Amino acid sequence: MVQPQQPIGIFDSGIGGLTVASALAKALPNERFLYFGDTAHLPYGEKSKSLITEYSVQITLFLLDKGIKHLVIACNSASAAAYESVRALCATHGVAVTNVIDPVVDYIQQKKFKHVGIIGTKATISSGIFQEKLKSTAGLEVHPKSTPLLAAMIEEGFAGTDVSRGVLKSYLSDPVLRGIEAIALACTHYPLIASEVRNYFGGEVSVLDTAQIVAEHVKNTLTELDLLATSQTEPHEFFVSDLTESFKKSTQLFFGTDVLLKAQKL
Amino acid sequence: MVQPQQPIGIFDSGIGGLTVASALAKALPNERFLYFGDTAHLPYGEKSKSLITEYSVQITLFLLDKGIKHLVIACNSASAAAYESVRALCATHGVAVTNVIDPVVDYIQQKKFKHVGIIGTKATISSGIFQEKLKSTAGLEVHPKSTPLLAAMIEEGFAGTDVSRGVLKSYLSDPVLRGIEAIALACTHYPLIASEVRNYFGGEVSVLDTAQIVAEHVKNTLTELDLLATSQTEPHEFFVSDLTESFKKSTQLFFGTDVLLKAQKL
Repeated sequence: MVQPQQPIGIFDSGIGGLTVASALAKALPNERFLYFGDTAHLPYGEKSKSLITEYSVQITLFLLDKGIKHLVIACNSASAAAYESVRALCATHGVAVTNVIDPVVDYIQQKKFKHVGIIGTKATISSGIFQEKLKSTAGLEVHPKSTPLLAAMIEEGFAGTDVSRGVLKSYLSDPVLRGIEAIALACTHYPLIASEVRNYFGGEVSVLDTAQIVAEHVKNTLTELDLLATSQTEPHEFFVSDLTESFKKSTQLFFGTDVLLKAQKL
Repeated sequence: MVQPQQPIGIFDSGIGGLTVASALAKALPNERFLYFGDTAHLPYGEKSKSLITEYSVQITLFLLDKGIKHLVIACNSASAAAYESVRALCATHGVAVTNVIDPVVDYIQQKKFKHVGIIGTKATISSGIFQEKLKSTAGLEVHPKSTPLLAAMIEEGFAGTDVSRGVLKSYLSDPVLRGIEAIALACTHYPLIASEVRNYFGGEVSVLDTAQIVAEHVKNTLTELDLLATSQTEPHEFFVSDLTESFKKSTQLFFGTDVLLKAQKL
């Protein structure tokens, strides 16, 4: 049986999921996290469901072997393609799984919004996963818009600059987003531009920050399962399947502070 | 033996190479072109040499089968990884090959520049191919700078906007580019921002447009080989290995006019 003092596993195709790790660390300061970024195989967005599932299962086995009590899939593509397989595997170890799609879908349904925009990568938007999960919600119309340049723009350090404002203005002024009351940021990179999206809409549109919604969801789940740690004894650990200078430099951007990445082949 | 009235083959991992096709069509208005964009496998930048070679050889076989008289590899990654294999294969058919690296290297050497900047994708710059080919050029110092956001930014239609100017300013103001007399645009997307790069440097830096240099090189080669066509009888043809709406929309951007893409599995 899993115990409160065991760590929480988090994985993503890269280091964008560090925004989710950061939100989790703030919401759950007593918890210890093991992060895995599959940088050798990124991006997942263009890969087949079976290949994403294969990678996700390998990462999950690695993290289960490290003794996690809960798993967070901090990647939209893996959440869409591999959640059922990962959940079934984790269930055999008594470990529950949180993905980055369902908590956002639940949140939108609870708030009873009528018009919600969704922005994400081309892969996430064209997969139609949010549109599909929300289609039977009475009175709700989803306004999807792919915003392909945003993730690369954020990685390149342009968040909070005139470049970022120009790109956001171009994307967010699309007529498809007219009349929305809320907008979901369906990409792990986007928490870094949440305040800019908020500014663009001048406070008239609720900005749903996936990282925060997921962190809240994990907190509630661990509380219900009576698995909250009471103190953090060991440091977090961060593994990547391909360690490059560029990833090392970007951890600060996504996690808020520098973290020590360790190379870990799958 | 190949004949002047046969078409010229051009291939790229995607549709960025249409800028090279466009420059070729302008320089050689009597020629007929067969273009192949391997959109099913893009981007090549992150793939291994052996895999890029495998795809390049398949495309070359397809184009040789269509009866080309000359082949242009309009892709930096394929030029770096697969040129020797493709050249050997084409030689058995009496077909010469032009890549997008050597003509630019020759041009830089002929002009006797002392300080030349090179901008390109992370894959092109970190491959060090230009640095390697130019390292024995007496008195020349190469200033490489990777500009990862530019290709995606151009694809998303931001060329010529405030966004583009902001991104270019950020990249081109890097101290590594200080003191250059010329800058090579080592990516097939970059002809679309050549005038903006020129404007940034205020005319003090020569901007080497790869597409134009390659087109000039092909013209000279065909002239030497006595293979120039005297009139264009049939229309150009454009094949892609994965046909999507997004590629259809982008042809105008890269070629200057809309072209009819045909799906062609490898």
